[in-house]
Amino acid sequence: MKFLSYSHDGRSTFGVAVTDGEHTGVIDLGGRLDGVGDLSDLLAQQRLDEARAIADQAEPTVALDAITYDRTLPRPGKIFCIGVNYGGRNAEYRDGTDGPDKPSVFVRFPSSFTGHDRPLVRPPESDQLDYEGEIVVVIGTGGRRIPRAAARGHIAGLTLGNEGTIRDWVRHAKFNVTQGKNWDASGSIGPWMVTLDEVGDFEHLHLTTHVNGELRQDDTPATMAYPIDYQIAYLSTFCTLEPGDIVFTGTPTGAGARFDPPRFLVPGDTIEVRVPEIGTLRNGVRDE
Amino acid sequence: MKFLSYSHDGRSTFGVAVTDGEHTGVIDLGGRLDGVGDLSDLLAQQRLDEARAIADQAEPTVALDAITYDRTLPRPGKIFCIGVNYGGRNAEYRDGTDGPDKPSVFVRFPSSFTGHDRPLVRPPESDQLDYEGEIVVVIGTGGRRIPRAAARGHIAGLTLGNEGTIRDWVRHAKFNVTQGKNWDASGSIGPWMVTLDEVGDFEHLHLTTHVNGELRQDDTPATMAYPIDYQIAYLSTFCTLEPGDIVFTGTPTGAGARFDPPRFLVPGDTIEVRVPEIGTLRNGVRDE
Repeated sequence: MKFLSYSHDGRSTFGVAVTDGEHTGVIDLGGRLDGVGDLSDLLAQQRLDEARAIADQAEPTVALDAITYDRTLPRPGKIFCIGVNYGGRNAEYRDGTDGPDKPSVFVRFPSSFTGHDRPLVRPPESDQLDYEGEIVVVIGTGGRRIPRAAARGHIAGLTLGNEGTIRDWVRHAKFNVTQGKNWDASGSIGPWMVTLDEVGDFEHLHLTTHVNGELRQDDTPATMAYPIDYQIAYLSTFCTLEPGDIVFTGTPTGAGARFDPPRFLVPGDTIEVRVPEIGTLRNGVRDE
Repeated sequence: MKFLSYSHDGRSTFGVAVTDGEHTGVIDLGGRLDGVGDLSDLLAQQRLDEARAIADQAEPTVALDAITYDRTLPRPGKIFCIGVNYGGRNAEYRDGTDGPDKPSVFVRFPSSFTGHDRPLVRPPESDQLDYEGEIVVVIGTGGRRIPRAAARGHIAGLTLGNEGTIRDWVRHAKFNVTQGKNWDASGSIGPWMVTLDEVGDFEHLHLTTHVNGELRQDDTPATMAYPIDYQIAYLSTFCTLEPGDIVFTGTPTGAGARFDPPRFLVPGDTIEVRVPEIGTLRNGVRDE
C-alpha cells in the first residue's frame, strides 16, 4: 500500500494512493483515525495496520493528478544519511585512500526537503546544485542495538529521495558536510511510502536517476558496502531508533559533480529518481 | 530571567528559577499560559515576554534542591554544533593543515542530551566518553540570511552544554563525526536558559570546565575563530532558523582526548561546565 501526504482544495491531509486497477486515485484518510493528524502521527502511533484496514474498504475520491504532493513524512524524526556506499563510490573521491571501515553518516533537517513534483531550489549563493537519487527507509518500529537479522522487521516501508546537495558548501570545512546538505528545499522525498509487503529483497531493487531523460545513476543495493540491514544495526547501536525516523541509504555513482566538467542542475532541468517497486520521484529546479 | 524544564512530584513542567534574593526557588509556569505545554512551546509561540510578566508577579513555590532538572529544551528544533572554533583548537588536530575558511558544522539529535545533575551514560561499546564544555545559544526569533549585526536580536537566551562525545566513534568514517556525537544521553544541556538581558558582551563570558574539581577547559568567546554573531549569520544562509533551534558554539582546548595519554571519563567522575552569568551545568557519569 502507498501512503502519502498531499494537499487538495487548500487542505493538507494524508491518504493512500491507488495506482493500478480500475479505480486509480487517492483515498483520503484525513480525520478517519482518531488523534491522527498526519502521516507522521500515524507512524509515531504505530497505527499503519488500522489505516490499511480503513483503506481496504474505501474507494479513491480524488484523482492523482488533482493533488499537490507534500513531503511524504511531514515531520520526520531523525534523518540519517549514509555516504559513500554503492559500488565504486569511494573511488570517486580520488584521494588515494581506502574506503573507511564504517559508513559515513550525516544528518539533514526536514526543511531541506520538498515533495514530489515541486521544484528544488537553487540559491543565489551557489551554482552547484546537484542530485543524488536514493532509496529511503522509513522506520516503523523503534529499537536500540537492533540485530541485522531483525532489521527488516523495524521498517514500515520505503520511499525515494533526491538528496540534493550544494556541492561547494560540502567542502567548507574539514570534518563535516552539514552545510552543503541542508539548504532549504534543496532535496525531495516522495512520492509516497510503499509498505514493506510490496517490496521483495532489497538487493533486487533497481534504482535509476535520469536528468532530462538521460540516465545518470543506475545501481542496486546489492553493491552496497553497507547494506540496509547493516545500516539499521549500526545506527541503532548509538541511538534509539523511533517510528518515523528515516534513513537515506546512499546514492550510486554518477552525481553531476563526478563528470568532467561537472554537470550541475539548472532551472528547467527535470530529475527523476525511480525504483519500479516504489515509483518515480520527479522534481524540477527553480532559482530562488 | 532563568527559564528551566524540570520534574517535581512525578510531573514534568517548566518555570523560572530564582537563584538570589530573599526567596530562592522555582516558580512553576505549567498550566499558566494557555496552549503552552512546555518550554519548547513557549519559545515556538514566542511568548517569553508573557511568561516573564507572570513570573514577575509570582513567588517561588518549590525549593531548587527539590526538583529534578530535565533537558532545558524538551523538544529543541535543529541542533547545530560548531567544531574547532576557540583559540588553539585547529592546532590540536596536529594534521599540519591550516584552519579551514569556514566553520565545521555537525548535528546532534535531542536524545543525545540529558539534563543537569543527571549522569552521562558511557556505553559498553567504548571507554572513550569525553567532555566538551560549551556555551549554547537558543534562537528566539527565526530568520534566513540574518546579518551579523542583527544576530543578537534573534537570540532568546543562553544555556550551557556538555557536548559529550564517544571519541573512537567520531573517527569511524572520513567525512563526518555524526556517530561519535549522538550516543543516547552522552551529553547534557542545562541547568536553565538565561535570557539575553542578563548577559553582556559574549566576548567577556568566561567558560570553564572542571573534572572532579580540576580545571580542564578555560577560555572566552573572544578567542573564537567564528564568533557567535558570525555563526548565526552563516547557519541562516543555508537554512531558515526557527525559534527553539539551538547552537552549540564550540568548545575550548582541553578535552580529555587532547591529553597524552588521553583522560576519558569514568563512572564516579563529576564534570562541571560553568559561565558565571549563566550558571553551572554538572553531570556525573554512569555505565549503561
